[in-house]
Amino acid sequence: MSTSASTTTAPTRFLETNGQRYAYRRFGKRSARPLLCLQHFTGTLDNWDPAVTDALAVEREVILFDNAGIGGSSGDVPQTMAGMTKHVLAFLDGLRLTTCDVLGFSLGGVLAQQMAQDRPSIVRRMILVGTAPRGGEDIMHLDKPSLAKHLQDPSNRGYGVLQKIFFAPTTTSQAAGEAFIGRLMQRKEDRDPASGPNVASAQIAAFREWERFTGERFADLKSIRHPTFVVQGVHDEMIPVRNSYWLAENLPNAVLLVYPDAGHGSLFQYHDSFTRHAAAFLTSDSDSAVF
Amino acid sequence: MSTSASTTTAPTRFLETNGQRYAYRRFGKRSARPLLCLQHFTGTLDNWDPAVTDALAVEREVILFDNAGIGGSSGDVPQTMAGMTKHVLAFLDGLRLTTCDVLGFSLGGVLAQQMAQDRPSIVRRMILVGTAPRGGEDIMHLDKPSLAKHLQDPSNRGYGVLQKIFFAPTTTSQAAGEAFIGRLMQRKEDRDPASGPNVASAQIAAFREWERFTGERFADLKSIRHPTFVVQGVHDEMIPVRNSYWLAENLPNAVLLVYPDAGHGSLFQYHDSFTRHAAAFLTSDSDSAVF
Repeated sequence: MSTSASTTTAPTRFLETNGQRYAYRRFGKRSARPLLCLQHFTGTLDNWDPAVTDALAVEREVILFDNAGIGGSSGDVPQTMAGMTKHVLAFLDGLRLTTCDVLGFSLGGVLAQQMAQDRPSIVRRMILVGTAPRGGEDIMHLDKPSLAKHLQDPSNRGYGVLQKIFFAPTTTSQAAGEAFIGRLMQRKEDRDPASGPNVASAQIAAFREWERFTGERFADLKSIRHPTFVVQGVHDEMIPVRNSYWLAENLPNAVLLVYPDAGHGSLFQYHDSFTRHAAAFLTSDSDSAVF
Repeated sequence: MSTSASTTTAPTRFLETNGQRYAYRRFGKRSARPLLCLQHFTGTLDNWDPAVTDALAVEREVILFDNAGIGGSSGDVPQTMAGMTKHVLAFLDGLRLTTCDVLGFSLGGVLAQQMAQDRPSIVRRMILVGTAPRGGEDIMHLDKPSLAKHLQDPSNRGYGVLQKIFFAPTTTSQAAGEAFIGRLMQRKEDRDPASGPNVASAQIAAFREWERFTGERFADLKSIRHPTFVVQGVHDEMIPVRNSYWLAENLPNAVLLVYPDAGHGSLFQYHDSFTRHAAAFLTSDSDSAVF
């Protein structure tokens, strides 16, 4: 694999395993332990910001992944996070990877937590951006007014809606959103098909299930000992920042970073800062999350 | 001034102004804009951890300061944060400093906020560690069981009590506390007199006043535009972490970092990490707090 490939140029590859086909892209500096990037609600391989994934690929291999039923991957989108996580593990098994670091954004951050619980050995360190623990609150309620006004506005199409809902309603954050959309559009060929309403409805069902908990709230986080870096924008309307507070308060080994003047897409808005901190975190081989 | 001076060796100096004598120490790389360090409840010049202030002094001048009635400074300890802040400003005026960066820890972080409001031009960037906004909650209630059990234990004397109340009740955090106490004791000569009960009672009165607010809660933070770096340990019993959440949510230009397995003294426990992040923040000349 050429190390000159990037988020914009890496060819889409396919892994066939257990009767399932998974689409993925793989690029960056070859390393024994790649960084697996798990994507947000309805996001495909084409929703990764080159400013983030190319910067992280300078010192490690990056793998972008379409879960079942997304982009070029076959199958149906599971209606639970546990179901989606089974596909992540099957994909890694198919690649014969026994360990990786994980960058999970939003829905992807939920899957990262589930991976750490279901197969702790396969995760070394994880970065959870704009996500929530099981039993969190106000997770992806797209019908609430602050989100619905953008999602139901017919003048917002395609990537344009992401600028509205991933970024804060300030001049600075919206400008960062516009730049983000521009970067997503740098890839011209070999693009994924966009997700349809069936993807959205299955993933929303999974979020609803993730909001439920039994027993002591957040107790399941105590067993996740992996060094974890939790990141969120302080004005995230899609998954409010208090969900990251709960992650930091209940994961025993997590550093929390909260960005100002930013919404759900804080990692894209502050890509220079985010990738510098993320790289420092990933480079550490301490048992502690502190970097 | 010798740049070889350090937290452990810098002589105590005195500034006379307006009939008041202020004790201070000044060391590090000479710079146009020094870092003013504002100390915690009852803390003196001798409560600064060399691992923190020496590391920060590598690239900038550091000034440690005894407020009125503390250590070698004359006068009475004011019973309000505003009163203490007047002394900080008088001290800076006496040194003919028109601008500085501020590291405010705990009570010192309250004074930093008050400085930024009372004379915005004198503060460029500020780091607020283990502190709270006006109207915060559970700020320095030393009579609550989790703190009283240590403060009222006669076997805890002098610095020993700091290990208990500044660090989390885990083996790792307590070990970090023991190392911290060892570093505080490296300075053998020219030490400050310890604070007595009159200092504590005046400062506690000031904390009680700081918990009160009128009008819209936290609205006063909206006008503080200074780039701010908010840091806290997730298990801080003296000033719980939710106070830092409120700072990050209401200061318009603040990055929040929360450390795991740490209490009030997170900056001392994770001095390597803290000083690396603090130096990166202070070195930035961006209008944004993001670093």
